[in-house]
Amino acid sequence: MTLDNGAPARARGVFVTFEGGDGVGKSTQAERLQEWLEAEGYTTVRTREPGGTEVGGLVRDIVLHHRGEIIARAEALLYAADRAQHVATVVRPALERGDIVIQDRYFDSSLAYQGAGRVLGRDEVRRLSLWAVEGLIPDVTVLLDLDPDIARERREAQGRPFDRLEAEQAEFHENVRREFLALADAEPARFLVVDASQPVDEIAADVRTRVRSALEWAGI
Amino acid sequence: MTLDNGAPARARGVFVTFEGGDGVGKSTQAERLQEWLEAEGYTTVRTREPGGTEVGGLVRDIVLHHRGEIIARAEALLYAADRAQHVATVVRPALERGDIVIQDRYFDSSLAYQGAGRVLGRDEVRRLSLWAVEGLIPDVTVLLDLDPDIARERREAQGRPFDRLEAEQAEFHENVRREFLALADAEPARFLVVDASQPVDEIAADVRTRVRSALEWAGI
Repeated sequence: MTLDNGAPARARGVFVTFEGGDGVGKSTQAERLQEWLEAEGYTTVRTREPGGTEVGGLVRDIVLHHRGEIIARAEALLYAADRAQHVATVVRPALERGDIVIQDRYFDSSLAYQGAGRVLGRDEVRRLSLWAVEGLIPDVTVLLDLDPDIARERREAQGRPFDRLEAEQAEFHENVRREFLALADAEPARFLVVDASQPVDEIAADVRTRVRSALEWAGI
Repeated sequence: MTLDNGAPARARGVFVTFEGGDGVGKSTQAERLQEWLEAEGYTTVRTREPGGTEVGGLVRDIVLHHRGEIIARAEALLYAADRAQHVATVVRPALERGDIVIQDRYFDSSLAYQGAGRVLGRDEVRRLSLWAVEGLIPDVTVLLDLDPDIARERREAQGRPFDRLEAEQAEFHENVRREFLALADAEPARFLVVDASQPVDEIAADVRTRVRSALEWAGI
C-alpha cells in the first residue's frame, strides 16, 4: 500500500498515554479522547497499567494489596513484567493494526513513583522499563498536573478507598508531582502538560488539539 | 569481635546454591548438606527459587501455571522480582547473621533457561539478575549434571506431574544442560560440577568436601 505521493504508508497507529497522580482525572480524559476519536472514525484501544492483561492483573494484586513489605527493586521488576506482557500482547499488536492506543499510565509513572519517591535511581528504572518494552515510547504523553491536596479531596469526595500507594505521605505525592513535571520538561516534544484544575471540557479540547497534530504527523 | 590473629571477624555466612535441570536430585542433596551442617553445629537456612517468599509464591503461580502465553521478557522480569524480594528479605539477613544459606536454584537457572533456551541473551539476563540482587553471587554453586532422558525417567518414576516448563521439548532440556555446563566452565572457582548419575552418598560426600573448604575460607 502506498500513499498518493508514492511513499510507503506508515503501517502504525498512534500511542497516547495519560500520566499524573491519582485523582487528577486521567480516566475521564482518556474516555473523552476515546469518544472523540471513535466519532472521527478511528479505531481505538483503551487500556491501563498495571493490569492491562491477565498476568498484569495478578501483578497488580500483588503490588497494591500485598500486606507485607515489597522491596523497591521487586516492585519495579513486577511493574516492568506487567509492562512487558502488556506492550507485547496488547499495545504493539494494536499499533501494528493502525489503531490509536489510549493508555492510563506507562513508564513515566514508574520513573516518577519509583525513581524519585523511592530508593531507586531514575536512570536505572528507565533502562529497566525500556528493556521490558523493547524501546516503545509514546507519541503523545498528556500530563495532568494538579496539587496533590486537591487530588486527595477529589478522591475522598468520590468515596474511593485508599490503596497502599495512595495512603503514603503527602510529601511523597509532592515529590511525584515534581518528578512528573521534570520528565515533561526534559521531553517537551512528547509531553503535553495540562493544568488539571481547569474544567473537564477545556482540558479535553487541549488534548484533542495535541492528538490531532500527532494523527496528522502519522499520516492517518 | 576479633579472631585470634587480631583481624576483624568475617561477619557473614556462606551462600551455597544447587543448580541443574528438574529431576537431577537438587532437593535430596540440599537436604543431605543441611543435615550434615546442622550436625556440625552450623545454623542453616534452606530455601528455593522461585517461591521462597510470599510474593515469590505468587510469582511462581503466575509463571508455572498461567494458561496463556507469557512473553520471555515478562517471565525473566517476574523471576527477577521474586529473586529481588527473596534475597533482600531471606538470603541477605541470614548471611548477615552468619548462617549458611542452602538454596535450590538461583540466577544460573535464569541464565540457563532464559538466556539459552529462550529468545533473550545471556548477558542481558545476567545484568537483570544482578541488578535485582545488588550483585550477590553464591560462594559455592553445585551443578548436578545429568542426561535429561534419565532425569525425565526419574520424575516419571516418582509420579510427579509435569509443569509448563517441564513439558517442553527434549531438545530444550539438552540446551539447558549445555548452558549450565558452559556457565560452570566460565567460573570454575565458584562451581562444583557433579555427575548426578552417581549414588546419592557419593555425591553428598563431594558436596561436603567442597562446602567444608568454603567454610574454612570464610573462617567459620
